[in-house]
Amino acid sequence: MQFAARTQQIRSSHIREILKVAANPAMISFAGGLPNPEVFPVAELAEASAAVFKVEGRAALQYANSEGLLELREWISARYLSRHGITIPADEILITSGSQQALDLLGKVLIDPGQSVIVEEPAYLGALQAFAMYEPRLLHVPLEADGVNIDALERTVAGISAADRQPVFYSTPDSQNPAGVTCSAEKRRRIAALSDRLTIIEDNPYGELVYDLTTPQPPLLRALDDRVILLGSFSKIIAPGMRLGWVCAHRPLYDRLVIARQAADLHTSALSQLILARYLATNDLDAHIAQLRATYRANRDAMLAAIEQYFPAGAVELIRPGGGMFLWCRLTNGVSAEALFHIAMQSNVLFVPGTAFYPEANRAGDQYMRLNFSNASPDSIRAGIERLGHAIADCVRSARGMPATSTAANSVSTEIL
Amino acid sequence: MQFAARTQQIRSSHIREILKVAANPAMISFAGGLPNPEVFPVAELAEASAAVFKVEGRAALQYANSEGLLELREWISARYLSRHGITIPADEILITSGSQQALDLLGKVLIDPGQSVIVEEPAYLGALQAFAMYEPRLLHVPLEADGVNIDALERTVAGISAADRQPVFYSTPDSQNPAGVTCSAEKRRRIAALSDRLTIIEDNPYGELVYDLTTPQPPLLRALDDRVILLGSFSKIIAPGMRLGWVCAHRPLYDRLVIARQAADLHTSALSQLILARYLATNDLDAHIAQLRATYRANRDAMLAAIEQYFPAGAVELIRPGGGMFLWCRLTNGVSAEALFHIAMQSNVLFVPGTAFYPEANRAGDQYMRLNFSNASPDSIRAGIERLGHAIADCVRSARGMPATSTAANSVSTEIL
Repeated sequence: MQFAARTQQIRSSHIREILKVAANPAMISFAGGLPNPEVFPVAELAEASAAVFKVEGRAALQYANSEGLLELREWISARYLSRHGITIPADEILITSGSQQALDLLGKVLIDPGQSVIVEEPAYLGALQAFAMYEPRLLHVPLEADGVNIDALERTVAGISAADRQPVFYSTPDSQNPAGVTCSAEKRRRIAALSDRLTIIEDNPYGELVYDLTTPQPPLLRALDDRVILLGSFSKIIAPGMRLGWVCAHRPLYDRLVIARQAADLHTSALSQLILARYLATNDLDAHIAQLRATYRANRDAMLAAIEQYFPAGAVELIRPGGGMFLWCRLTNGVSAEALFHIAMQSNVLFVPGTAFYPEANRAGDQYMRLNFSNASPDSIRAGIERLGHAIADCVRSARGMPATSTAANSVSTEIL
Repeated sequence: MQFAARTQQIRSSHIREILKVAANPAMISFAGGLPNPEVFPVAELAEASAAVFKVEGRAALQYANSEGLLELREWISARYLSRHGITIPADEILITSGSQQALDLLGKVLIDPGQSVIVEEPAYLGALQAFAMYEPRLLHVPLEADGVNIDALERTVAGISAADRQPVFYSTPDSQNPAGVTCSAEKRRRIAALSDRLTIIEDNPYGELVYDLTTPQPPLLRALDDRVILLGSFSKIIAPGMRLGWVCAHRPLYDRLVIARQAADLHTSALSQLILARYLATNDLDAHIAQLRATYRANRDAMLAAIEQYFPAGAVELIRPGGGMFLWCRLTNGVSAEALFHIAMQSNVLFVPGTAFYPEANRAGDQYMRLNFSNASPDSIRAGIERLGHAIADCVRSARGMPATSTAANSVSTEIL
């Protein structure tokens, strides 16, 4: 059997392989990107589900329209207005099966083989996987502590011939995965200023998960230019297993996305959509999000404190993330993240080596590790970071051929990527 | 904004446009392809849902694996063994968001631009839409009353150069949509004999919906050759709104489908999968299917009887379908289905003109209309067919420039496509 050429660009996911060993119950895993199931609103969704079956069971089980449940799209529209002061009409919002599906549909509708697609380096792996199917020419622009390297982005855009098609720029400006970086307001303005020459896709799964609430939040790219294509998700604020996300797009892009969506799988589960809409209508989402933030903030702070306590002095540099679910640590002393990964696995602790988020040929990622702090308790975070600290010490020692030193004074740099 | 070349092959769906007017409550619609919500097992699924939230709520709301819930895949495997005597291991079954998604994933993994894909004429529209995204060279082989024209299929395969890639053949051998045709056992054997030179995709959404139970059912293509890729769906036997289907494929195709699936939307709703698995474990599906068959058989028979009573004599030729959800009628007297459609719509009755299921340039479909009989009551079927009979009479009269004649003797031909 022969396979389509596009399958040649498919890269097997490091994370997928890693998650297989994470099933071992002795393992403490910082590798996944899962929200914490302890904070899922199970009872409230159970109640919403019972009401849906009682009141509109037949509609919940029948085929539904491809655009998605109007009530849900209106809720999303209203929330953009109340949180961000921007008007996105419900008929420019398409409900998708998670924002991963929105990435796939955008790839299908926007990317011809060879189309220039600019991504951050490091970049969200799911986007790279979705886009790879459409054989783009990927251009990588480095991410810095305050967002994408804007000069490099401007140079990249300037370097694309006027005869070429308008490039796509894919960005996660809020609490980026994996780097935890939030793009500054100033850089956002400079990105938006490129919108005449760039098709901008703003992915925003973590926008509600902010922990340092006294820090002012920069505006959405979409608030700076209404041509920006904006993605959102209920996965991180309610529950991922229902597969509910969305994409905001103007016509005629919206119309093409709907047709592509119909061809892809007709529509998102009507049952999931109705349960979620009822949950949103009968619960205080802001109170739920406040609880999520408190849980994740405590986890983040537990991980930062444990790193200070247990990692060898100066072993990592990292950004203290203001939101999201990840710490992105640069290993100093020339320690290889992939080598460390194997040593750490022997000690039953897992993370994702940074190479997973870089182009395959680029070894720069081998200095980094991504640590997830959402799906663990503070206690298991401390235990796992202690194990990881020992593994780093082992790695440093074997690299230097020296005996282990005591790890008396530890430090965490901040605001350095 | 520029769009990918593949979006040029996108054809707007006739059915989609038609369904918009179907929302008018005065309209009797035979246009859709919806199962009857009156036979959805709402109470049983509500109970299964409550149990899932109670027992495994957090798992139902968390990310899940891309292959699908093992319990569900094992159930499907066991049912193939018990119903068809064939062994398909659970690890060769991928749960998809409806079988529409399986079609999209197969397109993605198998179809390069220009790849030869042989389809039946008329063909299932959803498959044409899914494949069109991958820019195949479509080859059409006529459908006859006992399945695909096998000589034409063999000639088509022989006509493909050995230097070309192996062509794909997409077929729905059981109660095909739109034509209602079930392929004979003899033709199935001749199709399977081509499997060295054809990648065969067998779509089987209607296999359980058979109404003439004394007629022996021919074997699955998959039972005749285990290289056949087999698709199934819970949409027609339980409920479509949960979006649950599957595809059976051997490695290495299976592995590529899983990776493509992960890139497309990660996984099917964990909640939907767990609810369905619990429903299947705690209910008698065969009893439910017996009820479905009785309902749909009564609807089919009501439609056939109403056609005999209300259509002008000799106005249509049709096959009495042994299963599925559709009657496929050839209009005689040169009546155009598209012209009839507009007249019928004025009388508040809808169907889908056959042109929707043919290549755009091929007007042969304009002789046909597809009538759905699943999503209606026998009373509304009689009322709608009466209206449609008048519309046909109007059409015949205006075509002939003659006054309407009384429609004394009506007849329905059978076994003629």
